Amino acid sequence: MNTGILNANDRAAEQNRGAFKALNLLVLNVVSSPGAGKTTLLTKTLNELKGRLRCGVIVGDLATDNDAARLRTTGAPVVQIATGTLCHLEAGMVAEAMRQLDLRALDLLIIENVGNLVCPASFDLGEAVRVVVHSVTEGEDKPLKYPPMFYSADVVVVTKTDMAAAAGFDRELALKNIRQASPRAKIFELSARSGDGVAAWCDYLVALKAGAGAR
Amino acid sequence: MNTGILNANDRAAEQNRGAFKALNLLVLNVVSSPGAGKTTLLTKTLNELKGRLRCGVIVGDLATDNDAARLRTTGAPVVQIATGTLCHLEAGMVAEAMRQLDLRALDLLIIENVGNLVCPASFDLGEAVRVVVHSVTEGEDKPLKYPPMFYSADVVVVTKTDMAAAAGFDRELALKNIRQASPRAKIFELSARSGDGVAAWCDYLVALKAGAGAR
Repeated sequence: MNTGILNANDRAAEQNRGAFKALNLLVLNVVSSPGAGKTTLLTKTLNELKGRLRCGVIVGDLATDNDAARLRTTGAPVVQIATGTLCHLEAGMVAEAMRQLDLRALDLLIIENVGNLVCPASFDLGEAVRVVVHSVTEGEDKPLKYPPMFYSADVVVVTKTDMAAAAGFDRELALKNIRQASPRAKIFELSARSGDGVAAWCDYLVALKAGAGAR
Repeated sequence: MNTGILNANDRAAEQNRGAFKALNLLVLNVVSSPGAGKTTLLTKTLNELKGRLRCGVIVGDLATDNDAARLRTTGAPVVQIATGTLCHLEAGMVAEAMRQLDLRALDLLIIENVGNLVCPASFDLGEAVRVVVHSVTEGEDKPLKYPPMFYSADVVVVTKTDMAAAAGFDRELALKNIRQASPRAKIFELSARSGDGVAAWCDYLVALKAGAGAR
């Protein structure tokens, strides 16, 4: 862990945070393992929030603009960051990407991080809310095996609940492990595919933006 | 990317490789996204190889010895490396762990890396065969989105095939993407839960150890 780099990132993150506050912009940093369903969740969320919140997205990927293309189908402005071999987004990269968005025309900025349950944990982007997406197909033990990421969660969204039976998902054990690893986190359970549980998640974001939320 | 550190790792990896060759030990470096099913696959593999290959395991995790405990149920010797916040194993950590195993009594050493599709790609451990485990629930696009890891694969094992229908898995698209991202890789498709396809994978390991394999 390079302290010098982390400090530079932390300074840039505080600048981002200052900008977000000045613009009254709610910002999420969405992280997960590869394939947990971040893009599917966010596409569904953007569609559901139409007319309620004006949303924009910054999305990081090592390669391809597949996710950006999927997110753009919602009509929301999307900025892609290609990280190459870098396993996480950094605050300075977000600051660069922000310049390509009209932030004053947005209520909610969603940052979709690189699919990785380790590295992004150490890099504050200046977000108000860190969202860890965790699919039922990954196994109930993951919160205990990736403590830094889950500990940093403000919200844990359990996804792919429509596949719980096929995966043999032990819901009680999973929730117990999430509560242990993410003591501060609000927990949502949903399926972006079936739509179950999506309304509660979207209502939470609307309330949070209105200042009635948890932070 | 710190070139100095990478060079130090590469030197340590070559020493490991020299040791493995001198001992006629087949060594796999098994990588994947968190929750792709590495430990379930390896537990099944160890049980199936009993009487055919003498196996040992080195397993890396940020925290918990859950995976080591699961692997030890097979009777194989297992050494756990706790990486803390580090997103990958390094060759020097493997060299340390090797000292806790009687390598002369083994035919096959399996290194189960930290669940991460980015960082472990850059760290040679001295293995003969890099195995990327990729579950049908992660989505068909992952090989294109994580090019360094998939490009480095000698073998890609597609897991959780028993969940393909529930996941809406597009097998042809997935295989096309794997072949594009992993041009050198031999591909296996299996379910460690149902047992389908496991025999072909185990036969491959036995043949590889006997010198009839691909490398």
